[in-house]
Amino acid sequence: MGAVYHNHNSFVSSLDTAGKVITCKAAVAWGPGQPLVIQDVRVAPPQKMEVRLKVLFTSICHTDLSAWKGENEAQRAYPRILGHEAAGIVESVGEGVEDIKKGDHVVPIFQGECGSCMCCKNQKTNLCQKFGVNPLKSVMENDGKTRFSTKDGSPIFHFLNTSTFSEYTVIDSACAVRIDPKAPLEKMTLLSCGVSTGVGAAWNVADVQPGSSVAIFGLGAVGLAVSTESIKTKACSFITNIAWFIPCGEVIESGMEQVAEGARVRGASKIIGVDINPTKFTKGKAVGITDFINPKDLEVPVHEKIVAITEGGVDCSFECAGNLEVLREAFLSTHMGWGLTVLLGIHPSPKLLPLHPMELFDGRQIVGSVFGGYKGKTQLPKLAQKCMCGTLNLDEFITHELPFHKINEAFQLLVDGKSLRCLLHL
Amino acid sequence: MGAVYHNHNSFVSSLDTAGKVITCKAAVAWGPGQPLVIQDVRVAPPQKMEVRLKVLFTSICHTDLSAWKGENEAQRAYPRILGHEAAGIVESVGEGVEDIKKGDHVVPIFQGECGSCMCCKNQKTNLCQKFGVNPLKSVMENDGKTRFSTKDGSPIFHFLNTSTFSEYTVIDSACAVRIDPKAPLEKMTLLSCGVSTGVGAAWNVADVQPGSSVAIFGLGAVGLAVSTESIKTKACSFITNIAWFIPCGEVIESGMEQVAEGARVRGASKIIGVDINPTKFTKGKAVGITDFINPKDLEVPVHEKIVAITEGGVDCSFECAGNLEVLREAFLSTHMGWGLTVLLGIHPSPKLLPLHPMELFDGRQIVGSVFGGYKGKTQLPKLAQKCMCGTLNLDEFITHELPFHKINEAFQLLVDGKSLRCLLHL
Ligand SMILES: [Zn+2]
Ligand SMILES: [Zn+2]
Ligand SMILES: [Zn+2]
Ligand SMILES: [Zn+2]
Repeated sequence: MGAVYHNHNSFVSSLDTAGKVITCKAAVAWGPGQPLVIQDVRVAPPQKMEVRLKVLFTSICHTDLSAWKGENEAQRAYPRILGHEAAGIVESVGEGVEDIKKGDHVVPIFQGECGSCMCCKNQKTNLCQKFGVNPLKSVMENDGKTRFSTKDGSPIFHFLNTSTFSEYTVIDSACAVRIDPKAPLEKMTLLSCGVSTGVGAAWNVADVQPGSSVAIFGLGAVGLAVSTESIKTKACSFITNIAWFIPCGEVIESGMEQVAEGARVRGASKIIGVDINPTKFTKGKAVGITDFINPKDLEVPVHEKIVAITEGGVDCSFECAGNLEVLREAFLSTHMGWGLTVLLGIHPSPKLLPLHPMELFDGRQIVGSVFGGYKGKTQLPKLAQKCMCGTLNLDEFITHELPFHKINEAFQLLVDGKSLRCLLHL
Repeated sequence: MGAVYHNHNSFVSSLDTAGKVITCKAAVAWGPGQPLVIQDVRVAPPQKMEVRLKVLFTSICHTDLSAWKGENEAQRAYPRILGHEAAGIVESVGEGVEDIKKGDHVVPIFQGECGSCMCCKNQKTNLCQKFGVNPLKSVMENDGKTRFSTKDGSPIFHFLNTSTFSEYTVIDSACAVRIDPKAPLEKMTLLSCGVSTGVGAAWNVADVQPGSSVAIFGLGAVGLAVSTESIKTKACSFITNIAWFIPCGEVIESGMEQVAEGARVRGASKIIGVDINPTKFTKGKAVGITDFINPKDLEVPVHEKIVAITEGGVDCSFECAGNLEVLREAFLSTHMGWGLTVLLGIHPSPKLLPLHPMELFDGRQIVGSVFGGYKGKTQLPKLAQKCMCGTLNLDEFITHELPFHKINEAFQLLVDGKSLRCLLHL
């Protein structure tokens, strides 16, 4: 595989495209739910503190699916290049970029790390005040304009700081993570979102300890039963200014496997998967899930079952369903005193947290997890090492591979729940 | 003062009351809001793992006030001996008590530490599954009976594991903390609840760091506008089994000063007090509050003001009001990424947390604090040392002193908001 990358590298070098507009193929979204169109796009050179990347691999995650469907009207911007999981090689860098150079292997991240904002300077958080997750953002930070355009010069919008469904993309250097050139690039794609989010939730946010117990709440069909309409409804009189952002959390259906892998590596002794889809149960065993609970098989609430089989509750639970009833079950499934519930699921419901203030006095905590708590540029290179040395096993996550031009087929695989990840080769 | 305690000690020793019923004075509550009656009560000897204490000092906290008023019908039990802040000397101990002996100086704690339950064995929590806060409990754990009775032998109920409005009381050894006999007993009374709760919230729960910023939300009159009726209403369809316990949080009006003292000792650079009562502002300076905000003087929400004067929000906020609007302001007043809101206030409202699940993805956290996070028996002796060496200054907290028989007068001082603590001498 090393030879393959070397070829790519040479290819990039030989063209000497730096400073010039590149015309290449991209998959462009023209409207909600419309098939992506593979077409020529023009990609402008990177500006100050930007990086132009030749994308070699990309994959599709549910946040792309959600944006593609245009579920949230406020987030619609067409034409647009979606995609946020990828790996590639730097074609050229803009003014001022010091830490990345042409030829570097790079993983783009939707949750950037500018290094200079209050949050980036604080070790307690991986949020970045300048390059946070913001699905409403569709232009570059520098000049409020796009680097993509059609042949006739009209703008094509960006997505989630990344826009990886293109042979070339321009991203902020704050959103470009340089990784070891010896790392297998196709698998590194997973570090852009899904695996980092799931594994990081277990390692960084929950800090799962050896011997501890964990419950992971996947999707119930009920989790999908939230109407788009409800997103526009105000939550309650208290709440007037929530930005309905959707953090990319690789939240639906595949969250369970990735969190489980993180918990497995940390040596959790009991990893309980909760899902109403029985097919998840066979898949889950491969990533370390020790016990399965199908709520449909129970006559009691899930948390009662979990409390019964874990001496009072799990040490931590993960809510990957984006459903309020599931959230409450996840919360009550943890042990009083120290139980931690980590939210990964997107909650489009306008309803409030289904918790009473007094319930917090039982010592259970609940936290949100964005990008697994990883400060991308600082910490992902080490995670890449863990994949290379086999500590972290990514083999289970790429279930399909297709050429880039079959991207609509790959979307369908995800829509149908047939793929965990379909890797697209550019 | 040392001599005085020595006298008390000799007094206890000389009577040789061990194993016998003691008849003494107690202040008995006979009905909601009725003046306490100072009368003779019979106090049975301590049973297995119990301690009988000669109470020398006691004080009144708002949880006593709430129980006295009988605000929560489910918690009513008459006749009853209230009181949970006290200090005294052990008269005798029951079978099996190893760590406490006759003559020891002891502070009773409403939040016990049995040492053997799952929570007591876990360093992450100070909750105890056997002797937690439970205002519904009115009898001893051992036999489900009372140790107090009237002259004709009918039971007088216990309160909050302590019942300190009596010359003698029987408590579980799990709720008796042995402290240095050189510590000034009258001030140690404050460690039973108010000071431990407030200081501990700053030290143990929020872990306030030098140079950090803190906002403490005291009571708005609006905080009292919760009807007793609302307590009985169900919160929402999700929540069917909340125990409406009231953790003793020294929650109303005086929370601010005690948390502020904790923050001051830790070297917080900005301690913002928020209250609609302007008289709090002068008092607050003495305990280290650096900035005051009266929401009535603002044309914007409090959190906007706080965010503006603290470069994006405080590191932690404390909600001492028990009011949902205040809770939301406290939450939004903290910095994104790492802000922590500590709940001390009792929330009798049946309404849910006024937070949307997605708001947790901004990295703000919210936790409940019971008894300041202190494992009482393990950690309070060190806190007593901190008071003795002057690290922690308790001088501001005892604002009044009265003889025990004037207890109804002391209640009125608290009702009228005139006292922070009125120390009663027995
Ligand atoms: Zn930043
Ligand atoms: Zn994603
Ligand atoms: Zn109290
Ligand atoms: Zn215990």
